[in-house]
Amino acid sequence: MRRLDSAKAGFEAAFAALLDRAPESSPEVAARSAEIVEAIRLRGDAALVEYTARFDRRTLAGAAELELPKAALKAAWDGLAPELKQALEAAAARIRAYAERQKIAEWSFEDEHGNTLGQRVTALDRAGLYVPGGKAAYPSSVLMNAIPAKVAGVGELVMVTPTPGGEANATVLAAAHLAGVDRVFTIGGAQAVAALAYGTATVPAVDKIFGPGNAYVAAAKRLVFGRVGIDAIAGPSEILVICDGQTDPAWIAMDLFSQAEHDEDAQSILLSPDAAFLDAVQAALDARIAELPRAEIARAALRERGALVRVRDLAEAAALANRVAAEHLELSVAEPEALLPLIRHAGAIFLGRHTPEAFGDYCAGPNHVLPTSRAARFSNPLGVYEFQKRSSLIRCTPSGAKPLAVIAGALADAEGLQAHAASARDRS
Amino acid sequence: MRRLDSAKAGFEAAFAALLDRAPESSPEVAARSAEIVEAIRLRGDAALVEYTARFDRRTLAGAAELELPKAALKAAWDGLAPELKQALEAAAARIRAYAERQKIAEWSFEDEHGNTLGQRVTALDRAGLYVPGGKAAYPSSVLMNAIPAKVAGVGELVMVTPTPGGEANATVLAAAHLAGVDRVFTIGGAQAVAALAYGTATVPAVDKIFGPGNAYVAAAKRLVFGRVGIDAIAGPSEILVICDGQTDPAWIAMDLFSQAEHDEDAQSILLSPDAAFLDAVQAALDARIAELPRAEIARAALRERGALVRVRDLAEAAALANRVAAEHLELSVAEPEALLPLIRHAGAIFLGRHTPEAFGDYCAGPNHVLPTSRAARFSNPLGVYEFQKRSSLIRCTPSGAKPLAVIAGALADAEGLQAHAASARDRS
Repeated sequence: MRRLDSAKAGFEAAFAALLDRAPESSPEVAARSAEIVEAIRLRGDAALVEYTARFDRRTLAGAAELELPKAALKAAWDGLAPELKQALEAAAARIRAYAERQKIAEWSFEDEHGNTLGQRVTALDRAGLYVPGGKAAYPSSVLMNAIPAKVAGVGELVMVTPTPGGEANATVLAAAHLAGVDRVFTIGGAQAVAALAYGTATVPAVDKIFGPGNAYVAAAKRLVFGRVGIDAIAGPSEILVICDGQTDPAWIAMDLFSQAEHDEDAQSILLSPDAAFLDAVQAALDARIAELPRAEIARAALRERGALVRVRDLAEAAALANRVAAEHLELSVAEPEALLPLIRHAGAIFLGRHTPEAFGDYCAGPNHVLPTSRAARFSNPLGVYEFQKRSSLIRCTPSGAKPLAVIAGALADAEGLQAHAASARDRS
Repeated sequence: MRRLDSAKAGFEAAFAALLDRAPESSPEVAARSAEIVEAIRLRGDAALVEYTARFDRRTLAGAAELELPKAALKAAWDGLAPELKQALEAAAARIRAYAERQKIAEWSFEDEHGNTLGQRVTALDRAGLYVPGGKAAYPSSVLMNAIPAKVAGVGELVMVTPTPGGEANATVLAAAHLAGVDRVFTIGGAQAVAALAYGTATVPAVDKIFGPGNAYVAAAKRLVFGRVGIDAIAGPSEILVICDGQTDPAWIAMDLFSQAEHDEDAQSILLSPDAAFLDAVQAALDARIAELPRAEIARAALRERGALVRVRDLAEAAALANRVAAEHLELSVAEPEALLPLIRHAGAIFLGRHTPEAFGDYCAGPNHVLPTSRAARFSNPLGVYEFQKRSSLIRCTPSGAKPLAVIAGALADAEGLQAHAASARDRS
């Protein structure tokens, strides 16, 4: 794994290179995605069946076959091993308990003139949830996306997931059953995003689309943004660990592996003031990689994107962490609460030696859908609030309207908008 | 103005046609915008000076001339008429009072195992604010964007605004002074968006870009989304009025004009169960258009996009309003609170006959930056919360980690992610 030292020459350039990971689409992928989206918009189900047959190698008599009956979800749930059912139920309960606290509050107040001003909150009517197929089909992601939707009170939750060769992932369907997903379509790619955005005769149009996908899915989401809402453009997973050198290096090694095993583009970085500890972690990485069925992926990710970084002190580590704005940040130090005030940007923060990032992926409670590629500088973990929206409320009394008419009239005059001015002054 | 009747044949198609306004970019605009963004990314200040000289017809010796000194903002403020200063100050105070209530709360709780779970909130380090130049340069928009940023505690607020021919809008600069904008650059278009997203030697890179602009600006924002946050893709302004027929038709006419005067693509729709009232409003529109300097714009907007719609009753009006999901919704009825529960989607809701939309544009308190083009189905008014972001907090105790390790281990096994499983079980 790459070794850097913040006190050495060349550090700044090497560190900056690690951070350049923004998820712009390639023009080719964007163009291909745009073609697919346009075909679905114009030809609906016919195009959807064609693309699904081609890309997922399926034989389809018609679009009706694209919907999975709810009984299939139930059957998948019933078929799970009891321990797995129990783990999913326990995770779901914890995710729900955390989500319940995220609801946006309604409020209102009266101004000095007797006018009422407020904020009203409503849920989305219909949300779409993209669940990747194949090896990246994660039941935990179904829970993480669907449970906040249900807590928000979304009217209908529509899941799409590709089934290459017609093979569905039973645990994903079981999780959809547990989380109360309303409808499931076995479609994927840009064509699924377009179907959710525009609707077809078979797939209902949704108001906002959630969930990660490949480059085509990301490009399609970027394209339909505006017509529908989208959650975010998801990039590769990331973990940044700040360690004081006192955590078991074998634990830290496995924490770094836990993101590196996701895919070759995942990023694992460790910051520590203790050079000997970095050596020990490197040794533990070498020793423990034998435990991993996905060793090749993890090895590639650590080689291409990873770094063990010697820092001067924990304060410098925090400053670097703010530049990384990592999806996952572990503060594996004796007093994480003392370090926390120095942290400004991170999707989720794991405090203390006994809080590995993997808890957050499955069952701690907070959502595992988090801003990647430095988006924690400006965006939020997925949460109930992303399935709700606010409306402003304004209620003027006849007398309370008069002072507002004076202000609005003067400003509208200054902006040359006479209808605004007249409309305001009509009430005075 | 177009007349529709929900009880007549052909209504559904005519009404649906009114709603098809989603703001997709044209491919030509998107491609041109992408070129400009790429030039700024690669060549920084040099490209920024070239585009600004060309598009804004300016003679520039270098990029340093693109920044307005703070003294220029102060001078603009000092030069305002006292009545206008007073109106801006009154509006700013009301906008601030409302914004103060929008801050996202921090919270935490302990689970049954002694683990702590929470939500932390921090402000953006640096926000960019795009203010259109020329005729659409509105000081009220500066207040509406800048005040929530300041209430959120944004570290630095950077405004960009084009000055065609070198002419700045003094009232816009004065508003920037009043609202506490930190830096102002006289740049616009896709080149300004790119400069804010990537940074140049002169313009600092920001974390999120706010504010409306033309099609090139919108395309550039869509393009840089992911590298930075963006607020929304702004479309033309809209007003939907539901009236029981008892408000002065002259008032309602002017309310419809108040959006129609913005631009030819603006949309004004009135829903009423009272056909005679719709006639009276049409007569008032004909009579009062003489009051408007921007009559031609308003006339075009009402002709192309407007409608007077007879509905069966107020409940049907509410159902139609939910399909429109208008930026501005007036409930100009005797008992707006009775109608409100039927409304699911609207950016801002104006209750009662004495609450014209124009109050919301200037001084009621709630933000006038609102979702357009049906985006109220899934998005929020601009608010303090858009200048803040959340981080999830997880803090496990040594004993509290054990039950989580069991759940996470089982789920990671099911997903084939052995490093996740091992990392979790290391703590048990």
